[in-house]
Amino acid sequence: MKAQPTFITDNFLLQTEAARRLYFDYAEKMPLIDYHNHLPPAEIAEDRIFDNLTQVWLHGDHYKWRAMRANGVAEEYCTGSRPDAEKFQQWAATVPYTIRNPLFHWTHLELMRYFGVEELLTPASAARIYEHCNTLLQTPDFSVRNLLRKMQVRVLCTTDDPTDSLESHRQMAAEGFEIRVLPAFRPDKAMAVENTEAFNTYLVKLEAVSRKDIIRFHDFLDALKMRHDYFAEMGACMSDHGLEEAYAEDYTDMDIEVIFNRVRSGKTLEMKEVRQFKSAMLVYFGTWNWEKKWTQQFHLGPFRNNNTRMLKQMGPDTGWDSMGDLPQGRALSKFLDRLDSGNQLAKTIMYNVNPADNELFATMIGNFNDGSIAGKVQWGSAWWFLDQKDGMERQLNALSNMGLLSRFVGMLTDSRSFLSFPRHEYFRRILCNLLGQDIENGELPADYEWIGKVVQDVCYNNAKGYFGV
Amino acid sequence: MKAQPTFITDNFLLQTEAARRLYFDYAEKMPLIDYHNHLPPAEIAEDRIFDNLTQVWLHGDHYKWRAMRANGVAEEYCTGSRPDAEKFQQWAATVPYTIRNPLFHWTHLELMRYFGVEELLTPASAARIYEHCNTLLQTPDFSVRNLLRKMQVRVLCTTDDPTDSLESHRQMAAEGFEIRVLPAFRPDKAMAVENTEAFNTYLVKLEAVSRKDIIRFHDFLDALKMRHDYFAEMGACMSDHGLEEAYAEDYTDMDIEVIFNRVRSGKTLEMKEVRQFKSAMLVYFGTWNWEKKWTQQFHLGPFRNNNTRMLKQMGPDTGWDSMGDLPQGRALSKFLDRLDSGNQLAKTIMYNVNPADNELFATMIGNFNDGSIAGKVQWGSAWWFLDQKDGMERQLNALSNMGLLSRFVGMLTDSRSFLSFPRHEYFRRILCNLLGQDIENGELPADYEWIGKVVQDVCYNNAKGYFGV
Amino acid sequence: MKAQPTFITDNFLLQTEAARRLYFDYAEKMPLIDYHNHLPPAEIAEDRIFDNLTQVWLHGDHYKWRAMRANGVAEEYCTGSRPDAEKFQQWAATVPYTIRNPLFHWTHLELMRYFGVEELLTPASAARIYEHCNTLLQTPDFSVRNLLRKMQVRVLCTTDDPTDSLESHRQMAAEGFEIRVLPAFRPDKAMAVENTEAFNTYLVKLEAVSRKDIIRFHDFLDALKMRHDYFAEMGACMSDHGLEEAYAEDYTDMDIEVIFNRVRSGKTLEMKEVRQFKSAMLVYFGTWNWEKKWTQQFHLGPFRNNNTRMLKQMGPDTGWDSMGDLPQGRALSKFLDRLDSGNQLAKTIMYNVNPADNELFATMIGNFNDGSIAGKVQWGSAWWFLDQKDGMERQLNALSNMGLLSRFVGMLTDSRSFLSFPRHEYFRRILCNLLGQDIENGELPADYEWIGKVVQDVCYNNAKGYFGV
Repeated sequence: MKAQPTFITDNFLLQTEAARRLYFDYAEKMPLIDYHNHLPPAEIAEDRIFDNLTQVWLHGDHYKWRAMRANGVAEEYCTGSRPDAEKFQQWAATVPYTIRNPLFHWTHLELMRYFGVEELLTPASAARIYEHCNTLLQTPDFSVRNLLRKMQVRVLCTTDDPTDSLESHRQMAAEGFEIRVLPAFRPDKAMAVENTEAFNTYLVKLEAVSRKDIIRFHDFLDALKMRHDYFAEMGACMSDHGLEEAYAEDYTDMDIEVIFNRVRSGKTLEMKEVRQFKSAMLVYFGTWNWEKKWTQQFHLGPFRNNNTRMLKQMGPDTGWDSMGDLPQGRALSKFLDRLDSGNQLAKTIMYNVNPADNELFATMIGNFNDGSIAGKVQWGSAWWFLDQKDGMERQLNALSNMGLLSRFVGMLTDSRSFLSFPRHEYFRRILCNLLGQDIENGELPADYEWIGKVVQDVCYNNAKGYFGV
Repeated sequence: MKAQPTFITDNFLLQTEAARRLYFDYAEKMPLIDYHNHLPPAEIAEDRIFDNLTQVWLHGDHYKWRAMRANGVAEEYCTGSRPDAEKFQQWAATVPYTIRNPLFHWTHLELMRYFGVEELLTPASAARIYEHCNTLLQTPDFSVRNLLRKMQVRVLCTTDDPTDSLESHRQMAAEGFEIRVLPAFRPDKAMAVENTEAFNTYLVKLEAVSRKDIIRFHDFLDALKMRHDYFAEMGACMSDHGLEEAYAEDYTDMDIEVIFNRVRSGKTLEMKEVRQFKSAMLVYFGTWNWEKKWTQQFHLGPFRNNNTRMLKQMGPDTGWDSMGDLPQGRALSKFLDRLDSGNQLAKTIMYNVNPADNELFATMIGNFNDGSIAGKVQWGSAWWFLDQKDGMERQLNALSNMGLLSRFVGMLTDSRSFLSFPRHEYFRRILCNLLGQDIENGELPADYEWIGKVVQDVCYNNAKGYFGV
Repeated sequence: MKAQPTFITDNFLLQTEAARRLYFDYAEKMPLIDYHNHLPPAEIAEDRIFDNLTQVWLHGDHYKWRAMRANGVAEEYCTGSRPDAEKFQQWAATVPYTIRNPLFHWTHLELMRYFGVEELLTPASAARIYEHCNTLLQTPDFSVRNLLRKMQVRVLCTTDDPTDSLESHRQMAAEGFEIRVLPAFRPDKAMAVENTEAFNTYLVKLEAVSRKDIIRFHDFLDALKMRHDYFAEMGACMSDHGLEEAYAEDYTDMDIEVIFNRVRSGKTLEMKEVRQFKSAMLVYFGTWNWEKKWTQQFHLGPFRNNNTRMLKQMGPDTGWDSMGDLPQGRALSKFLDRLDSGNQLAKTIMYNVNPADNELFATMIGNFNDGSIAGKVQWGSAWWFLDQKDGMERQLNALSNMGLLSRFVGMLTDSRSFLSFPRHEYFRRILCNLLGQDIENGELPADYEWIGKVVQDVCYNNAKGYFGV
């Protein structure tokens, strides 16, 4: 596969003069706030230097593993024990087969932006590129913090379990690291009562970190609330919830106490009890988030761990998840209404994983935008499988048609990789391209000052104002 | 925000020469039939003159309120008690933030077409535009009837409750008003047995207007049938039903009588009973519609009143509704089949609110097109949240791919505003643009005579023939 | 409607120079494998010659019937007893009304490619075209086999019931017909226990063909397995399943035996029993498919026979089917996981009929691509109602975004008509157009050698390798 002077040029994805003007005059220079990702805070704190490209790029990247498996690459080259160089070679052999997949764009954009590599990654160029990047990676310029600085990152929100010590966050704040690295409260495990054993194991950790015996439900709540408070002290302004659906069953306080006692004493819960418990916890978390003026995020809809054989072999988050198609509307409405009824609905961002739900989400947010804050309830950026040109365009278009694009808090990487920040550039080019197209078609006035401001708002200012960071 | 000579020009939305030819030579001159809207007939009968733009444009327009709330505008400027001029100012401040939302296009199209305003509505231009439009609105040329005449409206179908007197319709028919203003039978309240109290209150009105005691189910049916007959006398040729889904439960006549007795005696019904009752009523209405050769419309899928706090504060239809994601297919098929089994399926138009159901609806209509009438079962035009360029294009494309665009009865406003008729122009431009693009791409033959005829059919002739007006 | 030099030119659907280069230099010359269709093998074996265009084109084509009915054509001209010439005239009168429907393209593409007809089919040209085609059809050059040869067909997989004798397949293999015509195992009737009477009638046929009494469930299984083995002997490498959903209920072997006994003794089953039985059969079939290294296909999602009145009048498969909107994800995941758990998941192709499920399917396949075979689990080409430009583009785009387009086994006709093979050309042009557009936009490198290879792989090579034919 040959490098071509026509591919990923300066004007990449910018198909009109108007788009180019918006991008180069307004978008490009904006710094960025990556308000949700899965980066390991310890590696930022220690300013890790990677040995090679496989480490930073392939370890932990289930997107790439899925592509490799679909290409017939054996597992030993994905999550297995083959040497890093061989894994890289297998990835390089897969890259040409990823044309039209976002991986093809991301791969070459990342090679260009971080390492100045202009040629395409193929089996032929693999060794050369590997060596080139490895050499650079081992220099201080390519430490984790410098990778972030290169991308103009101003704020990072990681994703942290309530039991996390947040030691790395504390350290970075103490030393005055100029990029704000904030924790986010992700209590999924504190709701996962469908697995009695895992839940009780989790409670042991929660007891330890909260220095509190957890016997009854109110102990459990107190411990979690202490951690929520602690997260706030550590600078958190955000919670996040990864759920198949927004649980909104009816329940009483007594129900929840009984359910807790049952699971705490080792019993397996009925599905209905599981759903009631999750429903109750979402209300508690939502109320705490509202009290602290946090933003809460809901990532809704995936079916996880579809492949039992592989789950047993390599555990979760290894690329065996996909979209679900559960109905989302009724429960989402009911859950948000519950919090809103007492006027305790925090700023909220909802992400759908299945694009069939795009318009449902795009219109649902309008039901709880009460005029108290511009863009109070947000529909989150195209996520996971949708994090590509088509997915972003559909999200931006549906949001435009059914809400206010101008108030959108914009892009986030949701990534586990320190090399994934060019996705912000990708998003910005797509955003400018849509707006530019509209200007050229006469569907928007050619008012660059105003539309340029909207671009900058979506790139950075809206997030800054909304999260108050 | 500056007015621009590139925005909403004569060629607005017409991207090819072929599109322009279709629009200007064929579409533009066609009159229009607005076969479903929510205009108040009394205001047409009295030929109301509005004091100001806020009255005609902002009072009652939940689209604009939702945009304002999403923009952080307080409720007192939406549905509240602030002076009209201030409300307008808030709306004007919101308009620049609506870029890419249909409101941005509608707003400026309406200002241009009715008031000749060429500049953009912004906080800076707001006072000037407000004054200009108010002055015009207070002249007889801008009375309700003249607003309709300006748009070449030939027929209007309003949406009326069975208990409505239709006095305004009678008056307009009697005086020979040249625009036919026809009532449409919308018996949603006669099916709303989920709220026992409201239902019984409704029966009091039905008793009064039908001059009949309603004790048993057959009394109820008789009273409704009398009103259906009366609507027909008053020129109605259409019923309309706003439903979450097309109820098609199994039931017996006895079931329905028992259910009626229960709700009539003040009891709260089980969900199953509610669904059975609605299922039965839909069959009665469907049969009556068929007997009278009416067209029946089903608007399916919204979740209404999602926000309890706001519902209590300001009642229904104030902008707290959104799309639902209930499964629609099975019940819709079963309901239509019930009527068709006895060959009693009236001409039918089905509208979906969630575009995830587009193709379901586009193919469902083909199951009941039996060759008796061209386009007997129709998939309705993009509705509510979908009433924008992307939504219309997707509806037109799916209808084209899975049915016969050429037999489509076309656009309707479904609006509560006398200024919303440029949406027909909007639709026509989009239609011509799609067809023109196909001609230019070589996907359609450049036969302007034929395709121009199809355009005119979809704009006007099909509706005229189908409804027999 | 006038023929136009701009319609279906050489560059039809190829909007860029890059697209044209990919199509003419790479795609056009490739032979084809039609790996799933509903052609009658007997007509290939006997090398049937048709009397007229109505026979080969309108008899049995429910796509055309649906269009005619939607156009107000009476049933006697569709499935009824009117003379062939009159039926053709009615179809010709409908064709101009099918603009933007795939029928409009298919019709003219088929007339051009098989019969050299350049003018459009309209009422005016109908008699002339009918005569021209009929004359050609009656010549040996237009025998069934020559129609297939003209299209460069290398392999055909028909769709056959387990009870079929496969006599025609045997005959063609014996005589060494150069196009491989292979049977495919479609045991839908062996799962259709919801209709006790029809199921028992079917068992009579199965007993006859397997020369085995079917008393207990294991007899039934043995008989089916014998047929599966026989299909393999006859060259089959494929099974196919047409289902509303992928049943994946829990059950025990004992459950299934009891259920079988009940239905075998004439009892009507509960819905749950029906679903359990289907769930069990899918696992048996899947295991057999895996043992034989076959590919299994699942066509999921239609609602069939929606119109009871018409079903009674003319039986199934006459154009009264449409999309369904059942949730598909959970059961599909569970079913595939069942087979995969024991590492017994055969190569699998899954087709969805409702495009709302596109991304669900596009991501589900990745959960079971374990690296053992490139593209092991495939998402099938746009099917039935989706078999048009928009449907194909959406399938190709979603597959690209969420999987590997480069490993796609590509197009199939799924057709009952010997004239439908230009759909492969249609698909190829669309594929090249998408890739060409990406090259021109700078979203793909202008590496024609590589992208041309991918085109040829998707057109032919991937299917050849995947099916091992």
